[in-house]
Amino acid sequence: MGNALVAQSGGPTTAINASLVGVVKGAVASGKFDKVLGGLHGIVGVMDEKIVEVSTDEAELSLIYRTPSSYLGSCRYKMPLVGEDDALYDRVLEVLTKWDVSAFFYIGGNDSMDTIAKLATYGKQVGSDIRFIGVPKTIDNDLVCTDHAPGYGSAAKYIATSMLEIAHDTAVYEAPCVTIVEIMGRDAGWLTASAALARNSYNPTPQLIYLPEVAFSRTRFIQDVKDCLSKTNNVVVAVSEGIRDDKGLYLSAKMKAEDKFGHMQLSGVGKYLENLVKDELSIKCRSVELSILQRCAAHIASKTDLDEAVELGKEAANLAEQGLTGVMPILKRGSNDPYTVILQHVDISTIANQESKVPREWINELGNDVTDKMIEYIKPLVQGEVVIGYSEGLPVYGDISHLTKKEEG
Amino acid sequence: MGNALVAQSGGPTTAINASLVGVVKGAVASGKFDKVLGGLHGIVGVMDEKIVEVSTDEAELSLIYRTPSSYLGSCRYKMPLVGEDDALYDRVLEVLTKWDVSAFFYIGGNDSMDTIAKLATYGKQVGSDIRFIGVPKTIDNDLVCTDHAPGYGSAAKYIATSMLEIAHDTAVYEAPCVTIVEIMGRDAGWLTASAALARNSYNPTPQLIYLPEVAFSRTRFIQDVKDCLSKTNNVVVAVSEGIRDDKGLYLSAKMKAEDKFGHMQLSGVGKYLENLVKDELSIKCRSVELSILQRCAAHIASKTDLDEAVELGKEAANLAEQGLTGVMPILKRGSNDPYTVILQHVDISTIANQESKVPREWINELGNDVTDKMIEYIKPLVQGEVVIGYSEGLPVYGDISHLTKKEEG
Repeated sequence: MGNALVAQSGGPTTAINASLVGVVKGAVASGKFDKVLGGLHGIVGVMDEKIVEVSTDEAELSLIYRTPSSYLGSCRYKMPLVGEDDALYDRVLEVLTKWDVSAFFYIGGNDSMDTIAKLATYGKQVGSDIRFIGVPKTIDNDLVCTDHAPGYGSAAKYIATSMLEIAHDTAVYEAPCVTIVEIMGRDAGWLTASAALARNSYNPTPQLIYLPEVAFSRTRFIQDVKDCLSKTNNVVVAVSEGIRDDKGLYLSAKMKAEDKFGHMQLSGVGKYLENLVKDELSIKCRSVELSILQRCAAHIASKTDLDEAVELGKEAANLAEQGLTGVMPILKRGSNDPYTVILQHVDISTIANQESKVPREWINELGNDVTDKMIEYIKPLVQGEVVIGYSEGLPVYGDISHLTKKEEG
Repeated sequence: MGNALVAQSGGPTTAINASLVGVVKGAVASGKFDKVLGGLHGIVGVMDEKIVEVSTDEAELSLIYRTPSSYLGSCRYKMPLVGEDDALYDRVLEVLTKWDVSAFFYIGGNDSMDTIAKLATYGKQVGSDIRFIGVPKTIDNDLVCTDHAPGYGSAAKYIATSMLEIAHDTAVYEAPCVTIVEIMGRDAGWLTASAALARNSYNPTPQLIYLPEVAFSRTRFIQDVKDCLSKTNNVVVAVSEGIRDDKGLYLSAKMKAEDKFGHMQLSGVGKYLENLVKDELSIKCRSVELSILQRCAAHIASKTDLDEAVELGKEAANLAEQGLTGVMPILKRGSNDPYTVILQHVDISTIANQESKVPREWINELGNDVTDKMIEYIKPLVQGEVVIGYSEGLPVYGDISHLTKKEEG
């Protein structure tokens, strides 16, 4: 029968452990694996034989399901082209063979899918019968073929909730003020678009939303803000970290401290626009960067997101059981309302190293907001709350001391 | 009988509306007031007669209880010294008399208590029988006399939860990295100290905590970080926005953009230390600023905090009913474990314009951590979760359109 080995890679998300739980449950349910092993710190850790046994205990899995960030650790590592340095591939196969692994599951985004595609290619080339299966995750939602990827819905829920709370915070004074909220997404605007969900019957903010898919104009931006200020004192702007001007240049700027310690720093776009508004309009302006909390705030995870992650993980085990290799399970949406999705799978070579961007028609003509189609797309993905246990006032998550112990030097 | 008038002032918090609910409930229960009125945008709005009737409906109050930020709006305004420009005091009394107000409740921090102290003084001076009562709130926890102030516990719970989630996020890679988390608190370190609650059986982070109460040394800081890196790859630092060096200078620096748009900006201390670590240690370093979310993230409010806010609000109504003026209810702690507090009250003139700081003995000798006494103090304040209603995946809060409608120009 052999063992299943699962590892995680790339930036952590709130749903990546739910995917892990799905793979474990699927592998156990199939009855086709002796044990479920976990590779620590992605493919790098696998090559270093940092391999542990993953618990199949229900209570333990339930805790891992709601634990943020990569329970098995992560790496950022690009495998060379097959044929370039095959010693690395041989090393992976050597470890997998030694640990009697019959299926290797890799949970990650574009770069991780590149790794799994290459491993599958090399495996076939040398006649290995180990199956290599990809499992999708990315908060950026930029994986192609799948309707969306686990991690995105929870990040979107955190962003929308934070935007709503920021709306309450910024509405209290009578003086005009502008608040710029910088949201992750270097090349794709999916995350920033989710800020629109904060709007409701009493809250019109954020009034302006800028995504990297449309070239950003400083002049147009200042005019947009002025137009909003003519109608309200409380203007909130959601902006993607990756917006660029019409020359393709990012709106962050190199900064140099003026004190004697003089460190260089790169300002984010939020800070940049804050200063632009202050300079051009001479009014109160503040910038907020949601930062890494948008990908790890498991206490406000989307239940839809985590449950879909489990299903995709199970389907990955199912695909391995069927003897497939070099594939990744995906979600195909049936309809928005009622929300329906079905599981399918694709050949990983068709998706690796590509990026899904927000369609131009889901952004309004002026490029300063999203359309209803965009909102209808995101809304189902943030539905449902995950029951989190609390102890001493704080959420209870899974023990990750296996990641943080530093080896003896 | 007359009416009760309540208003809110200063920076918003997660608990300031629970205080409002307490005042309303206390006023209704006393049977001594005809109506409960709300002044919009603090004392400035009162002078402008921006006065509304506050609902006494249970369901409505339950919604306001869990709504973040100032439901009645806020202002930042310092009344002149009594005797300096009495026309302003006469205007307040004129409005209160016109609206048949027999007790005025002002929910706020140090500056707001200064306002209520002056109003009480002036009221006595001109023989008014209107009672002026302060109701404490501040996330900074820098009000003197009271054991702690509403708003602090919820902010501490958000900070500790975020620190725990950041610990999970930053633990995944094998390469050494340092994460600096900048927390609010210009002069007092109470908020930053709450980061220590994130530590648990598997999480030693944040390993370093710097409060404004102790002079900060760049050299010592770099040595502290180096020492931590010798034991672990994942170093997390909690730092108060208000830390200063031994000359009393803030560690932020004026920055000038090097691009052609060249805006000036003030960097926060988090960004400053990030660059210091990168320069001095040449390792990966990131900074995160928790920003305004720490004072408005009502979806993770502390039930202890909100319930105490209600009790203090009720006690304020009770003090007015007893005919007192120029007073503020406070909390006196009996013990940490089991946690007990009792309600008392103080003369507002003894507390206005003072600041409570973290005692030196609650900070360790090196000035890079807090002691167990500090942790025992904070722990009871973050206990308990508030039941939040969700609709379409987002928290349901009270409608604040009464604050955001811009008047016709």
